[in-house]
Amino acid sequence: MYLDGKKIASHYNAYTIFDAIVTDLENTVHTLTIRADNRFSKDSALHIPNDYMSYGGVSRPVVLEQIRGQYIRSIRVTPHYRENCWHADAEVEVQNISGQTADVEVQLTLAGQKLPSRHISLEAGASGTLCWSAVFEDAEEWSPENPALYEAAAYLKNGNELIDDLIDRFGFRRVEISGKDILLNGKKLRIRGLCRHEDHPQFGCALPYSAIAADLEIIRHLGANSVRTSHYPNDELFLDLCDEQGILVWEENHARGLSEADMKNPNFEAQAERVIEEMIPAHYNHPSIYIWGILNECASDSEYGRECYRKQFELIRKLDSSRPCSFASCKFKTDICFDLPDVVSYNIYPLWYHDTLVDEYLKDLYCWVQEETGGAGKPFLVTEIGAGGIYGYRNPAHSKWTEEYQAMALEQQLTGVLKHPDCTGVYIWQFCDIRVSEEWFGGRPRTMNNKGIVDEYRRRKLSYDVVRRIFLEDAETAVKHAQTALQ
Amino acid sequence: MYLDGKKIASHYNAYTIFDAIVTDLENTVHTLTIRADNRFSKDSALHIPNDYMSYGGVSRPVVLEQIRGQYIRSIRVTPHYRENCWHADAEVEVQNISGQTADVEVQLTLAGQKLPSRHISLEAGASGTLCWSAVFEDAEEWSPENPALYEAAAYLKNGNELIDDLIDRFGFRRVEISGKDILLNGKKLRIRGLCRHEDHPQFGCALPYSAIAADLEIIRHLGANSVRTSHYPNDELFLDLCDEQGILVWEENHARGLSEADMKNPNFEAQAERVIEEMIPAHYNHPSIYIWGILNECASDSEYGRECYRKQFELIRKLDSSRPCSFASCKFKTDICFDLPDVVSYNIYPLWYHDTLVDEYLKDLYCWVQEETGGAGKPFLVTEIGAGGIYGYRNPAHSKWTEEYQAMALEQQLTGVLKHPDCTGVYIWQFCDIRVSEEWFGGRPRTMNNKGIVDEYRRRKLSYDVVRRIFLEDAETAVKHAQTALQ
Amino acid sequence: MYLDGKKIASHYNAYTIFDAIVTDLENTVHTLTIRADNRFSKDSALHIPNDYMSYGGVSRPVVLEQIRGQYIRSIRVTPHYRENCWHADAEVEVQNISGQTADVEVQLTLAGQKLPSRHISLEAGASGTLCWSAVFEDAEEWSPENPALYEAAAYLKNGNELIDDLIDRFGFRRVEISGKDILLNGKKLRIRGLCRHEDHPQFGCALPYSAIAADLEIIRHLGANSVRTSHYPNDELFLDLCDEQGILVWEENHARGLSEADMKNPNFEAQAERVIEEMIPAHYNHPSIYIWGILNECASDSEYGRECYRKQFELIRKLDSSRPCSFASCKFKTDICFDLPDVVSYNIYPLWYHDTLVDEYLKDLYCWVQEETGGAGKPFLVTEIGAGGIYGYRNPAHSKWTEEYQAMALEQQLTGVLKHPDCTGVYIWQFCDIRVSEEWFGGRPRTMNNKGIVDEYRRRKLSYDVVRRIFLEDAETAVKHAQTALQ
Amino acid sequence: MYLDGKKIASHYNAYTIFDAIVTDLENTVHTLTIRADNRFSKDSALHIPNDYMSYGGVSRPVVLEQIRGQYIRSIRVTPHYRENCWHADAEVEVQNISGQTADVEVQLTLAGQKLPSRHISLEAGASGTLCWSAVFEDAEEWSPENPALYEAAAYLKNGNELIDDLIDRFGFRRVEISGKDILLNGKKLRIRGLCRHEDHPQFGCALPYSAIAADLEIIRHLGANSVRTSHYPNDELFLDLCDEQGILVWEENHARGLSEADMKNPNFEAQAERVIEEMIPAHYNHPSIYIWGILNECASDSEYGRECYRKQFELIRKLDSSRPCSFASCKFKTDICFDLPDVVSYNIYPLWYHDTLVDEYLKDLYCWVQEETGGAGKPFLVTEIGAGGIYGYRNPAHSKWTEEYQAMALEQQLTGVLKHPDCTGVYIWQFCDIRVSEEWFGGRPRTMNNKGIVDEYRRRKLSYDVVRRIFLEDAETAVKHAQTALQ
Repeated sequence: MYLDGKKIASHYNAYTIFDAIVTDLENTVHTLTIRADNRFSKDSALHIPNDYMSYGGVSRPVVLEQIRGQYIRSIRVTPHYRENCWHADAEVEVQNISGQTADVEVQLTLAGQKLPSRHISLEAGASGTLCWSAVFEDAEEWSPENPALYEAAAYLKNGNELIDDLIDRFGFRRVEISGKDILLNGKKLRIRGLCRHEDHPQFGCALPYSAIAADLEIIRHLGANSVRTSHYPNDELFLDLCDEQGILVWEENHARGLSEADMKNPNFEAQAERVIEEMIPAHYNHPSIYIWGILNECASDSEYGRECYRKQFELIRKLDSSRPCSFASCKFKTDICFDLPDVVSYNIYPLWYHDTLVDEYLKDLYCWVQEETGGAGKPFLVTEIGAGGIYGYRNPAHSKWTEEYQAMALEQQLTGVLKHPDCTGVYIWQFCDIRVSEEWFGGRPRTMNNKGIVDEYRRRKLSYDVVRRIFLEDAETAVKHAQTALQ
Repeated sequence: MYLDGKKIASHYNAYTIFDAIVTDLENTVHTLTIRADNRFSKDSALHIPNDYMSYGGVSRPVVLEQIRGQYIRSIRVTPHYRENCWHADAEVEVQNISGQTADVEVQLTLAGQKLPSRHISLEAGASGTLCWSAVFEDAEEWSPENPALYEAAAYLKNGNELIDDLIDRFGFRRVEISGKDILLNGKKLRIRGLCRHEDHPQFGCALPYSAIAADLEIIRHLGANSVRTSHYPNDELFLDLCDEQGILVWEENHARGLSEADMKNPNFEAQAERVIEEMIPAHYNHPSIYIWGILNECASDSEYGRECYRKQFELIRKLDSSRPCSFASCKFKTDICFDLPDVVSYNIYPLWYHDTLVDEYLKDLYCWVQEETGGAGKPFLVTEIGAGGIYGYRNPAHSKWTEEYQAMALEQQLTGVLKHPDCTGVYIWQFCDIRVSEEWFGGRPRTMNNKGIVDEYRRRKLSYDVVRRIFLEDAETAVKHAQTALQ
Repeated sequence: MYLDGKKIASHYNAYTIFDAIVTDLENTVHTLTIRADNRFSKDSALHIPNDYMSYGGVSRPVVLEQIRGQYIRSIRVTPHYRENCWHADAEVEVQNISGQTADVEVQLTLAGQKLPSRHISLEAGASGTLCWSAVFEDAEEWSPENPALYEAAAYLKNGNELIDDLIDRFGFRRVEISGKDILLNGKKLRIRGLCRHEDHPQFGCALPYSAIAADLEIIRHLGANSVRTSHYPNDELFLDLCDEQGILVWEENHARGLSEADMKNPNFEAQAERVIEEMIPAHYNHPSIYIWGILNECASDSEYGRECYRKQFELIRKLDSSRPCSFASCKFKTDICFDLPDVVSYNIYPLWYHDTLVDEYLKDLYCWVQEETGGAGKPFLVTEIGAGGIYGYRNPAHSKWTEEYQAMALEQQLTGVLKHPDCTGVYIWQFCDIRVSEEWFGGRPRTMNNKGIVDEYRRRKLSYDVVRRIFLEDAETAVKHAQTALQ
Repeated sequence: MYLDGKKIASHYNAYTIFDAIVTDLENTVHTLTIRADNRFSKDSALHIPNDYMSYGGVSRPVVLEQIRGQYIRSIRVTPHYRENCWHADAEVEVQNISGQTADVEVQLTLAGQKLPSRHISLEAGASGTLCWSAVFEDAEEWSPENPALYEAAAYLKNGNELIDDLIDRFGFRRVEISGKDILLNGKKLRIRGLCRHEDHPQFGCALPYSAIAADLEIIRHLGANSVRTSHYPNDELFLDLCDEQGILVWEENHARGLSEADMKNPNFEAQAERVIEEMIPAHYNHPSIYIWGILNECASDSEYGRECYRKQFELIRKLDSSRPCSFASCKFKTDICFDLPDVVSYNIYPLWYHDTLVDEYLKDLYCWVQEETGGAGKPFLVTEIGAGGIYGYRNPAHSKWTEEYQAMALEQQLTGVLKHPDCTGVYIWQFCDIRVSEEWFGGRPRTMNNKGIVDEYRRRKLSYDVVRRIFLEDAETAVKHAQTALQ
């Protein structure tokens, strides 16, 4: 990023936010130049020819803000539930970009509660963090059924002058692991989800608000309650809508299918960890995010890979202790990392890449996890399941790639997974058909991944009604179970 | 095959003719049962899960004929051109199936010329062959431009009684190799062809006459002059129509993409050679067949494979010395068999399976053949070239699998190949989209091979007009060259 | 039709058989020329731009037969059931085309029963008919469940020499009207049928045997027991297959949607009646044909039209008294011809051309027929019902032309009609999508009639499974009713 | 529109802006309710079942603004070119909504030129208009090639306090009629345009910014320089983008295909005129709008209709004298209104609704206009031309509804129209396929109007490349003509 031809920032990774602060600007016309590079190269350990399209250009919003000598850098709210009551901790970070020491005051309003204002003195160039804790006796809990959101508003004053503000939203909810269950607000969580890429034939990965909202409308119509942001952090707009609509989010860092060799790229560690370092603070306040995922289908069957997984989980836990973490493995009975995450997650494709029956395959896999891995006793999630179906292609033989085959496969896959007694839930691969790298055309009809329940134009495949029926029935069953449990 | 429950014949290989003679049948109602088995197994070396569908059932005509004690088993006509005049040798094989010696007479009419009748005495169960030679001063030459056909009619008499006849057709034409050229009737041959599978969504591999005729109508409209019967001997009806319409045929035995391990199947040698032994006599008289092919894309890069190729060429030459032979190799610069065939043939896929430019790839390959193989100095054919295109799938990115990409690839491929100075011609892979074995779904959208110029319903893809234009222009150029050569 | 340039026959109407006898032919090579003209003009009253394609060329088989001075022109078998036993009357017509009187003998074998031979003396150029009657005590009844066929073989002898034969098939079955029921072999008939045009994207109206057989395979898989040969007499091959497979046929003469003005074309009466005169004798022996239809959707609401209908029914009854007759009307409550046919038949399109509910519309129509027309008390058939659906077009709005809308409409239409207590059954419009005259493009997407249950390539639309389910359930119900009735 | 349950505004017509001002609001939470009704009824003269979809809901932005006692209601800038220099007149309307007289000051900056501020005294509830005129010596002319835009910024002050502002954009350009030419900035205008509906399968008529921008990207890639906003005023965002990109706009009021009976609806006159009264002031400043259109394909062949046309043109001229006006007629040689507009415009469909050749049809029509109507000597535009083509439907017969037929028809239509010496240009019907009222399904495959150059998903039909080639060639020719004229 260049201002008047002079570099002011550079950033790796297309999916996380970054900023540049420029001081001492003359009051005249300036030129801001952004150069985006989506070429594959050794310098880029995360963007490789892959099972999705690496679009170029600027795909997320660009905001210009005029700030004074000091500004609010971030606000971070952590809800807690103690003694039958909601509490929240808040941290506000303030930055002084001026050349001299500044004494500033921060006022914070949390969920309508105006907290005592605090003062801080910051030396030139320094930043500082102020903390609050408060009790919220009447707080409505955020939940998929009632996604209650509250405002966290910080105001920065220098003397009497209001010089900056930062307003965000948060919700009161807690995520815990209890044996083989994930609990949301103390209740066992059941995941009926879809993996979703940010992709659209008209907008590439830069979907406008209306298109994101349209996707979520479909996802809810399908009876799903969760989305996995495969395979990178998603647009803030998407998370905002999930917050508002009570859609649970598995958000993950950017990495898909890296081999051990890919992970040995000298840039890998720094680049992958940087995504985590940018993702978590930026998205910390979203109540919809209930879990952090990393390194989808990477080399979790090798010692080298294991070390990478270990470090990233350590980093996540350092940045956010309020949510569990996991990774989606495809290493059938060879994974050696299941002691590391809070949740064991598997991507499986019975009836697609092989013809073993779902029940048999899942039973075999689950037994192995319990008997031979460090994942024993942990919650278990199926993070991918699915089959290819080309919209409009049907035949009486119901051969693979027909809409009929996909519908049949999903029927059996979903039924099989959801009836497994120890499975927390399932993410279908995937929401919509997506474009893939040209290099991947060989196994990808249309140079697209055709496993969507809707095609790229969001047209419903025959599997749509099947998924919807199973998800709605499962939701109903879940509600009944809950009611029974209450009695 | 069972008659009244008793086995009367069994046969391996779906694509060649066989018969069963039953004697001493009572004059009552009989039941003929045919059991067809298309399961894959180790017993079957040639039918394996493959890039085409192995349909089951009876896919070629079944004929019941009532014969007497003796009958004409075959008639075989070989045209020769000597001293500015057409000659023909004919052999008629007669079989005695009765329990006693028989003296029979054979009358032969060749192209309207009634030849002297011959007598033969055959012991019980024996067969014998009678030979004729004749000159045909006014014979019209069979050629693509003028596919003149003549009748060869043999009549079998026992005393005064006509007890059998056999009427076939043949044409006066000769195929020769002259340096790097294949000559048809002394003129350099230029192949503009398509590979064709016998496949149709309504009829499987059992196309009725009208459907075969419709295919040939398309092939001719495309400006093609040849068809390669990939990858097995074809229906007699197809060859008859090619004879009549002047379409040149590369007919090949049944084998596609066998690895060295596949070829080491203990049944391989016998089963593969049996196809040749049944194919050549059955189709010997068809003037349209100008070359025999074997073992498409098999292990011609291994010593074991080489021995198989060697034996089969030997067998072909023993059965038919009037036509050249070849095989389609996909072993890029590793083939070790080019000293064996009369014509060096390659299946290449630049711009599809790899992105090397056509000219560069072909030049490299051809130089290697000339400089480092036993194929140096032989005619050179491209037996496959093509790209996948899914009917109805188009996009502005022209990504692989779009009709646009296929059209573009074929434009470059055909232009590149046809302008190569030493290339006899090209076969496009392939005429129409075909169904493949379910096991092959991974790299085959729709569980079909989508490289057809028309789809399975014979709908024209965008590449159709491209192919037609190039073929028609090439034909025109060829005619002009011929005219120039004549002056 | 010209032989050596000399006209030997001319014929109007594409769908019926005709012949030409040529005598005194020299023994040399002859040229038979057929000129087919499918242009629309005032001379042609039946072929007009219409809701189906009027293909050109020769679309039915051409047979050359060498005959002697006398030959068998036709054989006509009429089964009767009397006194718990099957009888049959047979008439054989013999023609003398020689220049002198001939005494010939006819031998007839009916269903294996060799009947006494008869002699007839025919003057030069004359024809004569011989009649037989016989009892068949062990005859198996022809029925959809058991389509037993028998041979009728006539042999013509001149002295000791066999000079001609004619072999046809027939079945023992009877069709009767009993109040509001049509009885087949004394049992109430229930029609679950489809209207079918002879049309195929590869073969036009000239479908080969395999394609006709493939159509019937689909029709039977759909659970249908009848086909209406809309809107012309069909190929003999089709009728043969229906005979063999127990498919009941409504065969009709050639006329569709003629207005009063069209019917006033001076050629109309002769041309339309000629079709009947050619259709009935040619197809008389087919047991599958259970009814004759005429003049689909013509001007049955006008006095002029009524006179045409009257005359044609008169003609049919003269040619064949063994079958009932009907016509398909689209004149909603304005038809004035229902006193004429044996069966009242209506083409209705609720939920398609208008949005009145099926039950309501049908009830209204049926009441009117019973209360205000000469059709009161007669059997009632729905000869068309259906909706357009473009293969591959679906949307969540289920708007008209989607496959979903078609499926929904057929579900309601079929259910509504089949539960009507006085309805003998239903013919779906139509089997497959067909090409229409370019002039009809306005209301016909793709210049095709898209109301097929399968598209032109015989791909199943979503309505396919709906129709199949309803037809199979109805068949089961019918069987149960029959069983209950028997108890 | 209701505030806290109390009606504050009601509005007819979906496509124009309206507002409601609420005073004396308590400082608490309020509820704004909008009820949108898209049912068809006699009360609605403009929305009838039609050749486009009348979506429901709120399809344009809703803005809440807090205003003081006085605010700026509108700003209206009219550029003039006089004595080789650009001038502009500006009018600013100020409204006093307070209960007492107010003295306010308006500051106006036009194209960077700060004009002398003006004061105005407004009684309670009154509004007043202030006017300015200024010269802009260095103004860059707005043109398709260089769409230079300038800001018009008005600021309202009450004493020292800035209480409102209104900032809009305008351009310096003039549109004039000169004989048979429309002149833009004194140069003959050539229209290469497309009619466009606001329609999208995901967003209905409420396209987000990105989708509008994507449409305009396609339109420019096609080589078009103009859009007709058929058949209603368009979204402000669309006009803003046209301003920025130099796309000329024919904007029209809301009315399509109204019959004389429809126009006699008692609400028609008021409702239709209201659209004009709301459209023109709201869009007055957009330089891209070069002409106003009314009453597409209405009863301009009747005296009653003529009176409506006359009144509406009168109204337009009263509201805006700076632009010409026209209407698109489909009354072939029966229109009686051509004396009324400034430009004669025709929607014609040779090769689609009839088969007359384009040249012949156009010549005939144009001669009639010149010889027998009041439109003689006026500029002449073809406002619709086109043909239906269903995306993905192709066949070798190139029948109507195939992509091939559409491409062929457009080729001939565009070529024919653009070579007509007196034709100012052409609008293709239409940009993209659109949904139509279910009532229109009969002649509209898929219940959509399929005449788009792209389908509803913006997939390019075969006609796309044809249109692009012709438009780019025409643009090049136009440039050459212009250059020649300059020499």
